Amino acid sequence: MIGGDAAGGSAASQAKKRQRDLGVVMFERGRATSYSACGIPYWISGAVASEAALVARTPAQHRAAGIDVRMRTEVVGIDLDRRAVHWRDLDGGAEGDEPFDELVYATGSVPLRPRVPGIDAAGVYGVQVLDDGVALRAELDSGRVRRVVVVGGGYIGLEIAEACRLRGLEVTVVDLSATPVGTFDPDVGEFIAEAIRREGIELVLGDGVAAVEVGADGRARGVVTASGRELPADLVVLGLGVRPNVRLAEEAGIPSGVSGGVAVDARMSTQVPGVWAAGDCVESRHRLSGERMVVALGTHANKQGRVAGINIGGGYATFPGVIGTAVTKICDTEAARTGLSSREAEAAGYSFVTAVVDSTTKAGYFPGSRPIRVKMIAERRSGRLLGAQIVGRKASGKRIDALAICIWNEMSVDEILSLDLSYAPPFSPVWDPVLIAARKAFEAVEADPR
Amino acid sequence: MIGGDAAGGSAASQAKKRQRDLGVVMFERGRATSYSACGIPYWISGAVASEAALVARTPAQHRAAGIDVRMRTEVVGIDLDRRAVHWRDLDGGAEGDEPFDELVYATGSVPLRPRVPGIDAAGVYGVQVLDDGVALRAELDSGRVRRVVVVGGGYIGLEIAEACRLRGLEVTVVDLSATPVGTFDPDVGEFIAEAIRREGIELVLGDGVAAVEVGADGRARGVVTASGRELPADLVVLGLGVRPNVRLAEEAGIPSGVSGGVAVDARMSTQVPGVWAAGDCVESRHRLSGERMVVALGTHANKQGRVAGINIGGGYATFPGVIGTAVTKICDTEAARTGLSSREAEAAGYSFVTAVVDSTTKAGYFPGSRPIRVKMIAERRSGRLLGAQIVGRKASGKRIDALAICIWNEMSVDEILSLDLSYAPPFSPVWDPVLIAARKAFEAVEADPR
Repeated sequence: MIGGDAAGGSAASQAKKRQRDLGVVMFERGRATSYSACGIPYWISGAVASEAALVARTPAQHRAAGIDVRMRTEVVGIDLDRRAVHWRDLDGGAEGDEPFDELVYATGSVPLRPRVPGIDAAGVYGVQVLDDGVALRAELDSGRVRRVVVVGGGYIGLEIAEACRLRGLEVTVVDLSATPVGTFDPDVGEFIAEAIRREGIELVLGDGVAAVEVGADGRARGVVTASGRELPADLVVLGLGVRPNVRLAEEAGIPSGVSGGVAVDARMSTQVPGVWAAGDCVESRHRLSGERMVVALGTHANKQGRVAGINIGGGYATFPGVIGTAVTKICDTEAARTGLSSREAEAAGYSFVTAVVDSTTKAGYFPGSRPIRVKMIAERRSGRLLGAQIVGRKASGKRIDALAICIWNEMSVDEILSLDLSYAPPFSPVWDPVLIAARKAFEAVEADPR
Repeated sequence: MIGGDAAGGSAASQAKKRQRDLGVVMFERGRATSYSACGIPYWISGAVASEAALVARTPAQHRAAGIDVRMRTEVVGIDLDRRAVHWRDLDGGAEGDEPFDELVYATGSVPLRPRVPGIDAAGVYGVQVLDDGVALRAELDSGRVRRVVVVGGGYIGLEIAEACRLRGLEVTVVDLSATPVGTFDPDVGEFIAEAIRREGIELVLGDGVAAVEVGADGRARGVVTASGRELPADLVVLGLGVRPNVRLAEEAGIPSGVSGGVAVDARMSTQVPGVWAAGDCVESRHRLSGERMVVALGTHANKQGRVAGINIGGGYATFPGVIGTAVTKICDTEAARTGLSSREAEAAGYSFVTAVVDSTTKAGYFPGSRPIRVKMIAERRSGRLLGAQIVGRKASGKRIDALAICIWNEMSVDEILSLDLSYAPPFSPVWDPVLIAARKAFEAVEADPR
């Protein structure tokens, strides 16, 4: 296993579980195995008490399961002819070769860094691996940071912005999109923008980063945007997303796909026999658009690692693709999406209608009932659900799963409105918000059958 | 429309919406239209401030939509030959006939009353219509009630028990089943029982009611159980469920089905042309067992009323059946089910395996993460999901919808474990509890392929 996080760790565990006498070596260049990268913002905010809590499986636990874990050891080359990897001990400097019959490539991703002046200055942080989180938190704990600029208003950018705000800092988020989390439609994104501003976080939208200003001490002291705005900062955090870490694979001749991730089949086999890949470094098939895409998400990494491990261990398992489901919490607002956004549906060539409804999370009369907005994107004529977005207060986000399963099963909005969903006043109005949205989307489909 | 609650009100609204010049008369013998019967316990507890809040649509609102609403007017006979109903004004005593072209039978249900001595004494209450709630709440407000016995530990019984407990009363629940809410499997029911006892509510299980003890003043003063236990009470509440109110229909010759509810087709037409029925008084088809059953639930009543109204108004709509989805909140515990329970799956002739997992509602390390138990019932060999039950603390119950949709689409547990469900640490562990349960159920299917 090259990489000992979610994908590598899952693959190792499953393979070993299926074939007890299999020799499994897992190389990890960082200081932790199988940790929750998605949890880093919550550790930075202080909501999660310790770094150790983010680790699902320690090296010692992996070793107890019979896996030969090599920490702080980076694989620097793959020789497919000799069937061996070349490794280097990052602390001691030792090097060596390790032969393999089967290889799992699970190198994860690297944060996107805009090529602008000053980007490599001290005080500019990515948040990708646990060690990044450690460094960032040490900065915040030092007490010298008062103002933070977060570059990128996607999931991770907003989660870090919230974390910094919760620590009492002045926070500004800069994003190119007109509304934050550009993968949401604007009418949902504006609901998110309101929530962010309500928390006192400044949003600079429709603008990019032109440069990081660097002080005489070599540290970042602000950001200049494309439109010329100057945003002073003691700390700059990059939340622009990630790209798959395919360098080693490409050097070895393991092919990438059109998306830039390692190309794999449904069993997580690369195009090289005996070489598997899983996690943030691979590309997945979107079940609606057919498009190949890289979706860096722990839940996929775990599933893909499991599939690779089962197949290596002599079983048969597949990863059938993704439909773009995601959820996030920004302060007291929850936002979730699944399937295609309006823009994605258009790009995929679908002809569609949309419906947006505002409802409540519980019966309107029930204490604690909160606003929820549901948007549906349905194919013209057939009424097939192509995408859905939900934004609202507490108890909104996880409802997206129901619609993800509707999309997975290619249900039409008129089928959806007859579903037997759970109802009681503490959980939903008698017409569930999801069903109201389906009704409205069905009306839109019927009204416009061209 | 005979009945002006969820089903009758929805049918009237839809029919009128589709055919503006249609004359619609709606007879309601109670004092309210279109109210939330499911909300009554929360009004009794004080969580909901006013009785009026439970009314979704007042008589005045229906009238503004062009519906001729006759309040406190009971239909006492249906003449199918003359196509007319005979009505009586319950306050003024006037009587008369109203002719119809199309009739909607939406009479709801009546509470089950065990035929035991003392059952008709003062101080014994059902909780079925809003007027029952008014009477019960007046008793509790009088201040003379200290001890309450609730007969029946199903949804409504437990919700009333909780309401009384929240008002500071001593509450005992008596139920024939070994665990409360007998429609749950015992390993889920025991989780519910613990939650109830933690709130200080006494549970008397595996025992029925033999008699209501009546004092010299003619009021109930306790309950005697079948096993001979004496449970003193100032008030007895019946929460034994309901039966469909089919008396009028049967007198008129509108056939009932095997379950005792009015027999209807998917368009909500009875076997008499031009006579429709909807809501708690009709029987529905269970999509898994094929069984006809009466499910008294506001969400079905609304959908069925809508379907009847669309069809009357010249459109085409169907109600495709139920799969037994339900959710309830008992104090801080949420319990939900969908599909078949173990007992129901057995009765329907399925051969199946089960899996139970205990997980958490958020990532284990995330603040506010709470226990959740998921049980799955999967068909042997095919692995098709037949039923699921979820019980846990806050943010557990509504997750049942995802599994209801899996069942609706006849998904197998191995298909389910690959689903693209939403993940972020504030919403679930990286392996969603639902997916962990599917994995375990799949392992059980694979381990026992006979």
